[in-house]
Amino acid sequence: MTDAARPLVLISHQMLSPVQQALEAAGYDVARRWELVPGQADQVRAIVHAGEIPLSHEFLESLPRLGLIANVSVGYDGVDVPWCRARGIEVTHAKGLNADDVADHAIGLLIAGWRNIVAGDAVVRGGGWRDDPRVGNRPGLRGRKLGVMGLGAIGEAVAVRGAALGMEILWWGPREKPQAPWPRAASLTALAQASDILIVACRADETNRKAVDREVLDALGAHGMLVNVARGSIVDEDALIAALKEGRLGRAALDVFETEPTPVARWADVPNTVLTPHSAGGTVDSIPRMVGQALENVRLFIAGEPVMSAV
Amino acid sequence: MTDAARPLVLISHQMLSPVQQALEAAGYDVARRWELVPGQADQVRAIVHAGEIPLSHEFLESLPRLGLIANVSVGYDGVDVPWCRARGIEVTHAKGLNADDVADHAIGLLIAGWRNIVAGDAVVRGGGWRDDPRVGNRPGLRGRKLGVMGLGAIGEAVAVRGAALGMEILWWGPREKPQAPWPRAASLTALAQASDILIVACRADETNRKAVDREVLDALGAHGMLVNVARGSIVDEDALIAALKEGRLGRAALDVFETEPTPVARWADVPNTVLTPHSAGGTVDSIPRMVGQALENVRLFIAGEPVMSAV
Repeated sequence: MTDAARPLVLISHQMLSPVQQALEAAGYDVARRWELVPGQADQVRAIVHAGEIPLSHEFLESLPRLGLIANVSVGYDGVDVPWCRARGIEVTHAKGLNADDVADHAIGLLIAGWRNIVAGDAVVRGGGWRDDPRVGNRPGLRGRKLGVMGLGAIGEAVAVRGAALGMEILWWGPREKPQAPWPRAASLTALAQASDILIVACRADETNRKAVDREVLDALGAHGMLVNVARGSIVDEDALIAALKEGRLGRAALDVFETEPTPVARWADVPNTVLTPHSAGGTVDSIPRMVGQALENVRLFIAGEPVMSAV
Repeated sequence: MTDAARPLVLISHQMLSPVQQALEAAGYDVARRWELVPGQADQVRAIVHAGEIPLSHEFLESLPRLGLIANVSVGYDGVDVPWCRARGIEVTHAKGLNADDVADHAIGLLIAGWRNIVAGDAVVRGGGWRDDPRVGNRPGLRGRKLGVMGLGAIGEAVAVRGAALGMEILWWGPREKPQAPWPRAASLTALAQASDILIVACRADETNRKAVDREVLDALGAHGMLVNVARGSIVDEDALIAALKEGRLGRAALDVFETEPTPVARWADVPNTVLTPHSAGGTVDSIPRMVGQALENVRLFIAGEPVMSAV
């Protein structure tokens, strides 16, 4: 039942269902997109959204009173921002709120992959640890080159951590950053060519779809490693899998995928990979901050005040 | 066959057999402890050794011409140094040569355990990744307290990396270090009490055998985590396993064990663990440095010159 006096807020995906209670406690009625009741669409004023999930023009056009899409996430690649702006729909996100957590996870993936921590755990548990000669070990990290694609809040936090490991930092992004303390490569391919490990840490949009393609992966090379904590769309995943299988790329550690959850069978025969279920940014510390900011943006919008953290 | 003109050097364990070629190239005859030929023991001048492996008094007494134990490793807990000194046997080790590599691995274990990287990899590969609500996530690391047991070269390198993750650093060791930039706890138990994560990074000796006992583990607590990259002997492993099984300790990530290789069955029912096969210090960068220093110490000793890096 929708009370006309209580604004109606839509939750766009069941992964966000824990937010419902907070919205109701704040005085809103809540609609659930996956259980939308007839008559609700006409009343939706705001959407609380996870930015990587596509919101089609058709669906948004079915919400005539919609004025705000408040992303709980940092990314908002599922939202056509210019199209929304043209229709007076504001879009907000969780800018920078989980940069530390994503960067920690990125460095964890880097070390876990490069230094065989996940593989070593399987060796110990599988009985494969023998008193063999101590040869065939992995390279260390000090002095190796860490390429950061995208020097935003997350990319900077990754670079600071990599520097503490003694790695040499390089980066590339489409815009110059004169204040950045690390050198910018001439192109993404040049960055991959110069890097031992390439970390994807940029925002996803139409300009960088499958930007990490066969050419970039071959530039990274047979001894190189790719880490992706940004979005699966930025990497040509078929090209990545082929490069790993053919030994043209050394290893990969991925928190994000072309489709999520990624199909189990897709990775069964792909060597030298560490895979986590899009968990880099979600900690018990960052999630309340991110949800809290989205709820505050809903409150500001309903009250007719300027929102915070517009995209 | 032993050529009386060529000094005889003993390799103490088959894990060191790759060193044999370098020793022979340097002009020594090489004896292998696991295939000792009658008559060799009388001629052994030096041992190239992995310090964690016990060298019994009885065995050393069977080598009347022994004058040097050159450890390829940083640790030398298998060697009774005062006993050797009293008999004129010098002992050297690889002081500080792999501190960066061990610290990298320690931080990798810390993040892989705390942020569920190893567990997440199993979830993705096992088909357990579902579109569930994003709840039940782990805490982040910024602002959490990292206790470092032993502030030598490795402990310092761990502390620098932890600080780059935004963690608060504390430490404990038996000796004051007035130059240390981080506060020293009053005791090991006090350190564990104040820490979210305790990293064991000290040298093993008779004074700290099973120092991380039930009391220390309970002080670390149900939300705490233990990381050990030093030696298994420093932790009461039975107490550790009981604490993990009973939920009195949150999690553990271990590169070293009471016995190595550790029995597979010992860890089958122990939750929230990451286990690696004593691989923290062995990289293709550090191993040649460590072996090179041991070989140089053998050369100096045979030439009658002062050795480097005595313990």
